[in-house]
Amino acid sequence: MRKIEHLGIAVADLKKSNELFKRLLGKESYKEESVEGEGVKTSFFQVGETKIELLEATREDSPIAKFITKKSEGIHHIAFDVADIYAEVERLKKAGFEILNETPKEGADNKLVVFLHPKSTNGVLVELCQEK
Amino acid sequence: MRKIEHLGIAVADLKKSNELFKRLLGKESYKEESVEGEGVKTSFFQVGETKIELLEATREDSPIAKFITKKSEGIHHIAFDVADIYAEVERLKKAGFEILNETPKEGADNKLVVFLHPKSTNGVLVELCQEK
Repeated sequence: MRKIEHLGIAVADLKKSNELFKRLLGKESYKEESVEGEGVKTSFFQVGETKIELLEATREDSPIAKFITKKSEGIHHIAFDVADIYAEVERLKKAGFEILNETPKEGADNKLVVFLHPKSTNGVLVELCQEK
Repeated sequence: MRKIEHLGIAVADLKKSNELFKRLLGKESYKEESVEGEGVKTSFFQVGETKIELLEATREDSPIAKFITKKSEGIHHIAFDVADIYAEVERLKKAGFEILNETPKEGADNKLVVFLHPKSTNGVLVELCQEK
């Protein structure tokens, strides 16, 4: 866990939220990207060493659509940058955490990602990510 | 907005969550502190340039007690480090954000803090903080 790589924020309307975060942070989004596997469109802002990733669902069964239906817009996950995602998964399994996908999958921004179940992490959805 | 100074996480039991985050992050909390004005006990972990601040309510009318009753444990706020909190409040008011306390108040960790209303920030409770 070297740094907080990004914070994921679930939004209903990416275009509108892009404008909002531009006003909030005083800077432009530097990248937009779709992740088909997760059913999301994303937009990234850089703040210090951490990115803010806005996520809009592109279909009804997207985890982001479900999150917004259940909890409304807001902070969705914290992603930690790790040097070796396979070693971290092993360490965290041994430490008693529930891993949602033990095999890393493709995330946005050229990353391999693994999620931990929020019920084992105080209600916080934790992502591990490693640059490919 | 120079960096993400900390992420606040609402927890029901600080002692238990301290153990959990120690196992998750692979390191110890480096500080515990109470903030009487907010009715919270806090514990801090450092990850890169950002802190993770666990927050337990010390009384029923604490914002953290209300948050847990309404939404359950989880990520409570994002705090951005700013160079001049008074100037940032002016900039954000002009940009249309709703400020919860226009006069900065005492936060944990030797900071002056201001909160923005989550209804003007996509459901995200945003804190500005400046080292005193």
